Amino acid sequence: MPLKPNLRIPGPTPVPPDILKAMARPMVNHRGKPFAEIVRRVAERLKDFFLTKEDVLLLTASGTGGLEAAVVNTLSPGQKVLSVSIGAFGDRFAAIAEKYGADITMLQYEWGQAAQPEDVRKALEHDAEISAVMVTHNETSTGVTNPLEEIAKVVREFDKLLLVDAISSLGAIPLDMDDWGLDCVVTGSQKGWMVPPGLAFAALSERGWKAYEESTMPRFYFDLGRARDSQAKGQTPWTPAVSIFFALDVALEKMGQEGLESILARHARIGKIVRDGVTALGLDLLCRDERYASNTVTAIKSPDGVDVSELRRVLEDEHDVVIAGGQAKLSGRIFRIGHLGLADEEDIQDALDALAAALPKLGFTNAAAR
Amino acid sequence: MPLKPNLRIPGPTPVPPDILKAMARPMVNHRGKPFAEIVRRVAERLKDFFLTKEDVLLLTASGTGGLEAAVVNTLSPGQKVLSVSIGAFGDRFAAIAEKYGADITMLQYEWGQAAQPEDVRKALEHDAEISAVMVTHNETSTGVTNPLEEIAKVVREFDKLLLVDAISSLGAIPLDMDDWGLDCVVTGSQKGWMVPPGLAFAALSERGWKAYEESTMPRFYFDLGRARDSQAKGQTPWTPAVSIFFALDVALEKMGQEGLESILARHARIGKIVRDGVTALGLDLLCRDERYASNTVTAIKSPDGVDVSELRRVLEDEHDVVIAGGQAKLSGRIFRIGHLGLADEEDIQDALDALAAALPKLGFTNAAAR
Repeated sequence: MPLKPNLRIPGPTPVPPDILKAMARPMVNHRGKPFAEIVRRVAERLKDFFLTKEDVLLLTASGTGGLEAAVVNTLSPGQKVLSVSIGAFGDRFAAIAEKYGADITMLQYEWGQAAQPEDVRKALEHDAEISAVMVTHNETSTGVTNPLEEIAKVVREFDKLLLVDAISSLGAIPLDMDDWGLDCVVTGSQKGWMVPPGLAFAALSERGWKAYEESTMPRFYFDLGRARDSQAKGQTPWTPAVSIFFALDVALEKMGQEGLESILARHARIGKIVRDGVTALGLDLLCRDERYASNTVTAIKSPDGVDVSELRRVLEDEHDVVIAGGQAKLSGRIFRIGHLGLADEEDIQDALDALAAALPKLGFTNAAAR
Repeated sequence: MPLKPNLRIPGPTPVPPDILKAMARPMVNHRGKPFAEIVRRVAERLKDFFLTKEDVLLLTASGTGGLEAAVVNTLSPGQKVLSVSIGAFGDRFAAIAEKYGADITMLQYEWGQAAQPEDVRKALEHDAEISAVMVTHNETSTGVTNPLEEIAKVVREFDKLLLVDAISSLGAIPLDMDDWGLDCVVTGSQKGWMVPPGLAFAALSERGWKAYEESTMPRFYFDLGRARDSQAKGQTPWTPAVSIFFALDVALEKMGQEGLESILARHARIGKIVRDGVTALGLDLLCRDERYASNTVTAIKSPDGVDVSELRRVLEDEHDVVIAGGQAKLSGRIFRIGHLGLADEEDIQDALDALAAALPKLGFTNAAAR
């Protein structure tokens, strides 16, 4: 049976009971040996999910703090950067870099579409001064996964720095940091990791660390060099969210038991079930191209006449299923179902059943008839 | 009986069982109404401890992130700032401002001493271009509390901006934000609040918000204006550490029941017990002036021949009492006992008894004889 409420938003994702229990452990000295063992263990295990030999650094912050870390540790004011955006989080990544003075060229797409590697190629050919590319792997606001491996190939060909927002993809959708040549990869604890929000994880490639040395943006709290030096001693530069480390330690043990391949396969399987299920109900997906459909979050167009907030209310009040609405310009126009981290067939079927029961009450009477 | 281990470090401080239990609550939609109620309630209750009518903003970060927020939301590159430092955390506050391009004049004291209002006056008289003052209320690295009210009077007289690191003082040592005219006050969840680390709280005065409008330092994650706008809707700009909000909600309820006056009196009482206790053991306090002795953390000089790390090991292994060592240049020269947040006479007596039992084993045979 799905946990109730069945939290089907794209983060915070549901947290299994044993991981929640770890959240309630008493405090410890964050500079002591037992905690150092946890820091070392989680940092080491995260490498198996980033698929990197580089250090994975843990920051006490939301995912957005992780994105800020990516920016301020690798870029410099005035630097020309190509920002590939297919939605709200792509725009946010660009906005952070712009705040810190980067000279941004936007490569924007209609929300619901994926970025095309050939467009990245054209942009880099068009302006040789662009020295870094920022891209969202999985766009949580639209339910679209970018063809990151192919985009990375183009960026590597041009030998530019590649910063990746992998917040809602890593540990759920295939990403191979070292093999694909990604220079900075960032994710957050409340997504695929089945852990409460409050930690961001970031890794830099060798090129990324070279960029770190040359970068002149101001940084202190998010200084990844300090994080690296502290983690080498099993510590963090500033007092960390120790409870979330406890939780992550349990979560990574569980994820290790399931195995990355199985986890990725499960997400692919349930992503497909969601898309097939909502389509069978007569609903339209925002992402029309199955090749780019996200296996962690699905955005569904609100049928004419159906009020999204009312739909969400009925689902929550009558079915104990919590879904998300649309963000920014998609507010009121779509709703979103999260299926990352703790999510299996039953959880998803429960959400789909609730949707099937709720829609007719909202005036969408011909559901499943098309 | 004290909780075991008796965690006597100046943060993370021990967390009561009911607050730990709140940490284990299932995830919720951080944009939903039930969570909005919690955001509103904790933000409102925090005002009673800051003693302010201003918004208290909650950031998912360590205390150091809160200090960075104080800097980047009120200062500008090139701005002349007086940084009053009496220890490691005063130095850190200055280092953050310097990283972001502030033009820092340091007013430094020997570690163990308190800042003097007259020195602040002289520094402001000496350079009329200084437009802001940064000061640590309670210096965790030395166990010294600055005479903040008197320092604030001088700063108000000169009409400069006053940024206060109140991380290890607020909710434990008297601080009256509005009455004293403090322009930015920052604290952290793992100190007096009896909550795990991961949240920082910050408030700006009307002058502080005016400085915010004029400040040109780059900010995004720590943008207090965004935090204010989101909190007005019962939200946070980025996904917050929801578990720590749950814990804080319980903690503030408990603190409200005890009452601020009682809490402050308890800290004053146990601070005195610690100082009297260690002095009776023949040990010397780093802070020689009782007027400035911290009621949240006590720094004790390591007696000749006593190895601090060995003392800490014996206390932990044989007595289940965890204390802190010295930081930076005081490493190996002092040890520190934390007594903030969850701390009462019994907890402190347990720690003092352990110290009395451990010291002779470390070669300090004439304890209590002086």
